[in-house]
Amino acid sequence: MITGENFIGFERSAKGNSTYKTFDPKLNIQNSDTFYEATSEEIDLAVQKAKSAFETFSKTPGSQKAAFLNSIADEIMALDDELIKVYCKESGLPSGRAKGERGRTVFQLRTFAELVAEGSWVEATIDTAIPDREPIPKPDLRKMNIALGPVVVFGASNFPLAYSTAGGDTASALAAGCPVIVKSHPMHAGTGELVAFAINKAAKACGMPDGVFSNLNSAGIEVGVQLVRHPDVKAVGFTGSIVGGRALFDEASRRPEPIPVFAEMGSINPVIILPKALEHEGDQWAGTYANSITLGTGQFCTNPGLLLGMKGPELDNFVTQLASEIVKIEPSCMLHPNIIGAYEQKSKQAKQQTSLEVVAEYDSDVAVNYARQAITTVDGHTFLENSTLHQEVFGPFSMVVRCKDQQELVRILRSLEGQLTGTIISVDDEIQRYQGVVEALKDRVGRIIFNGVPTGVEVAPAMLHGGPYPASSDSRFTAVGRHAIRRWVRPFSYQNWPDNLLPDELKNSNPLQISRLINGEQTYAKL
Amino acid sequence: MITGENFIGFERSAKGNSTYKTFDPKLNIQNSDTFYEATSEEIDLAVQKAKSAFETFSKTPGSQKAAFLNSIADEIMALDDELIKVYCKESGLPSGRAKGERGRTVFQLRTFAELVAEGSWVEATIDTAIPDREPIPKPDLRKMNIALGPVVVFGASNFPLAYSTAGGDTASALAAGCPVIVKSHPMHAGTGELVAFAINKAAKACGMPDGVFSNLNSAGIEVGVQLVRHPDVKAVGFTGSIVGGRALFDEASRRPEPIPVFAEMGSINPVIILPKALEHEGDQWAGTYANSITLGTGQFCTNPGLLLGMKGPELDNFVTQLASEIVKIEPSCMLHPNIIGAYEQKSKQAKQQTSLEVVAEYDSDVAVNYARQAITTVDGHTFLENSTLHQEVFGPFSMVVRCKDQQELVRILRSLEGQLTGTIISVDDEIQRYQGVVEALKDRVGRIIFNGVPTGVEVAPAMLHGGPYPASSDSRFTAVGRHAIRRWVRPFSYQNWPDNLLPDELKNSNPLQISRLINGEQTYAKL
Repeated sequence: MITGENFIGFERSAKGNSTYKTFDPKLNIQNSDTFYEATSEEIDLAVQKAKSAFETFSKTPGSQKAAFLNSIADEIMALDDELIKVYCKESGLPSGRAKGERGRTVFQLRTFAELVAEGSWVEATIDTAIPDREPIPKPDLRKMNIALGPVVVFGASNFPLAYSTAGGDTASALAAGCPVIVKSHPMHAGTGELVAFAINKAAKACGMPDGVFSNLNSAGIEVGVQLVRHPDVKAVGFTGSIVGGRALFDEASRRPEPIPVFAEMGSINPVIILPKALEHEGDQWAGTYANSITLGTGQFCTNPGLLLGMKGPELDNFVTQLASEIVKIEPSCMLHPNIIGAYEQKSKQAKQQTSLEVVAEYDSDVAVNYARQAITTVDGHTFLENSTLHQEVFGPFSMVVRCKDQQELVRILRSLEGQLTGTIISVDDEIQRYQGVVEALKDRVGRIIFNGVPTGVEVAPAMLHGGPYPASSDSRFTAVGRHAIRRWVRPFSYQNWPDNLLPDELKNSNPLQISRLINGEQTYAKL
Repeated sequence: MITGENFIGFERSAKGNSTYKTFDPKLNIQNSDTFYEATSEEIDLAVQKAKSAFETFSKTPGSQKAAFLNSIADEIMALDDELIKVYCKESGLPSGRAKGERGRTVFQLRTFAELVAEGSWVEATIDTAIPDREPIPKPDLRKMNIALGPVVVFGASNFPLAYSTAGGDTASALAAGCPVIVKSHPMHAGTGELVAFAINKAAKACGMPDGVFSNLNSAGIEVGVQLVRHPDVKAVGFTGSIVGGRALFDEASRRPEPIPVFAEMGSINPVIILPKALEHEGDQWAGTYANSITLGTGQFCTNPGLLLGMKGPELDNFVTQLASEIVKIEPSCMLHPNIIGAYEQKSKQAKQQTSLEVVAEYDSDVAVNYARQAITTVDGHTFLENSTLHQEVFGPFSMVVRCKDQQELVRILRSLEGQLTGTIISVDDEIQRYQGVVEALKDRVGRIIFNGVPTGVEVAPAMLHGGPYPASSDSRFTAVGRHAIRRWVRPFSYQNWPDNLLPDELKNSNPLQISRLINGEQTYAKL
């Protein structure tokens, strides 16, 4: 079933000479399928098809876009076990995780289908005319969100389904009316091809234009760079490393016509455990965090890499407990030899820093590509002085920082780069005495969690997945939840436009029965 | 009253040695007041004060921010004739225009006051918990918009009040809860100082923190560049030239932590007059457009610099009429010798292009710094071949392009850079036969107008003032209307946060009685 070809719209194509294979990290062998890198001509054709598809797709009614998104979800489910098997052998992740992630992916597609079928997401805004206003008449103005144009999506290594080919970026961009070109992640090119097949099958069945979706293979950076530089590409979505996301952001910003890049990048997700919580519930939280740190071999964007507490016997006890809990957990496989290589190199570099103590490290034999989880600890002063310790170690690695007082904790929080999440663990009203800490944490993160773990990103309207740079390249948007669609649209105004020529969303009769802001009042009414 | 000093928060300060004066273009003399450029230390102090003010101002209740914005409006009105006089002698614009623009400025401030007093603008979104959901509990998530941080505003030369010191950028940023540092426009530094005084007077009276507003003088680019590079500045608003806006965008994008820049830049605002409209109403539209082209000496962002029609006797007649109408209009003064210098140079350059015909130019004597309006015409093929003709000539200059057919018109529209506005003039149902033209125009603009003129930007929720690059640096936002506030905020999520510690906007009891999206339903209800 897997051909290794690109999808240039509905056409399969493999014109290039450069090929690569994916890797099964559990078996530590290359997988058998050969993938063909997209050539410069194939890239250009994909963009030309997307541009052409944009003309009709951007004006496709919400009900038809919804049918398309639901059909993609159906076709992904129809891939059944083949998808799960390919996913597992390209990621080393277990089939339970594959199925869970497939469920999330399908849920996201159906959620956006529901949003665009209902239709109010366009934020229709109408100000009616006042022809006799003095000194000049007030015109009739009507505004709604419209699609930006072709969007390029870069999938994530760590979520082959939910943040990749048909993931949140693709689902939200298609919902907005933007054709999508996916730069397939080389680590799971087979998974990507299967999902791309599902998307194009759905597109054909639903009468969508050729070019509404393309999937381009590439093992290096050239395909991505050419896509981001292409004048007919109008926005970029990315999930991955800071280095990768920033490089694309820089490319996009340097274009003659700059385009928006939403890049969701790294994060160490600070967690603050207040003293009373340590005293009363330290052991319980140690167990909870040992699990959160090792979940998915620590390969989540929201993995808790930094735990902060107040120096003292309660924190000592917590560290001991965390150390003892984490080594009980069976090590698991990382996504790829390159990922485990980076994990080992970065955790080694961290562990070599002066005044840092390694309090736990799984030290029995592990299989090839399996990660040894580790817990380190350092005092607040050392952490403040050494910004190497602030860097993400992607994997099951966490550092406990022992702060001498609340002031030092605030200074540490202020010194951090932007983060996806921040967490506070507290019992009773103790948090009330830490308002400065809470404020400093809020300033650095996109989402703040009370008495929980940062892993787990609920797909819901109130979710914010993003945050101050470098958690994301633009903190004004989210990658998860319905508002993720705003990344791909621009508001557009009609002035004194004849009613019969307006899009349905803005017509007097409100044929779509959507909620609109009319002369300052939100209403489902007609005019 | 004018001291030439900077406002560093509440403090007046003039530590620099570099000074400059403003210019009265009508009298062709320098004005008497001396302005002191902000020094590097003054800039840094202004940013530090803004950062410190942000801590309290960002959490100031909407009712208090509203009182502050209304008080600014009151204090601007209280400046009375002094403001109007200084405005006129720094711009060459008549006092009627000054008063009209003051009215617009005050209206914008009061509109944002109303928005934040009501409070629903934060887009509160609540998804309640489902503790017994399988396989994992659903957390309680609550999201709202919060302020980004200190914002730097660059005022426009052509709107000393409405797009400058207390203009739309400042009003929307303060409404959002962001302290503002204005880089005062050197052409109207006195107007800026008076308005800055009004803002700080209001800030003190309303108990706002020192540093909520600063006003920095500068004749060159250094102050602006230092501000945009400052790590504690979190966003930038700009209205002006493409060269200036792009330079700031590039500075902001190159920062270690990139920040958003909303720059509203140049536009030639294409106007398409369809054949039947030319046949039946050509003379009337010629008069209307002669006025629109020369309004404010052509110094509006939305000035119609490009008129497009179908080759033929109707268009010939329209051009003859437009030519005869425009030379009847008394020339007026431009803002500054530099502006008229650029106008003369750019209009001369345009007029020297091969195959371009000058059909009207005011040729009687005019006073120094007064602009001679001009109409030129060119055929569609020439326009397509020569991109010099696509460039904005800032001033009362317009070009009529004679297209050979609808296909050529579409090609021309597709070749244009992004524009603030596009206009179609049509009678009866003729526009129905030009859907390809309408679609091509929509793709290039932020606002489309039917049977009107692009000059005049209504302050209303449904207004979109912006558009595809380079009309603006980010087409996803507007500079005018209530949604302009979105440029300065980021969504922020609370997960399982205790109700008593949530901001009022997200509390169960909805104490502010705002409209919220609760479990997918927009409602004013409590939980």
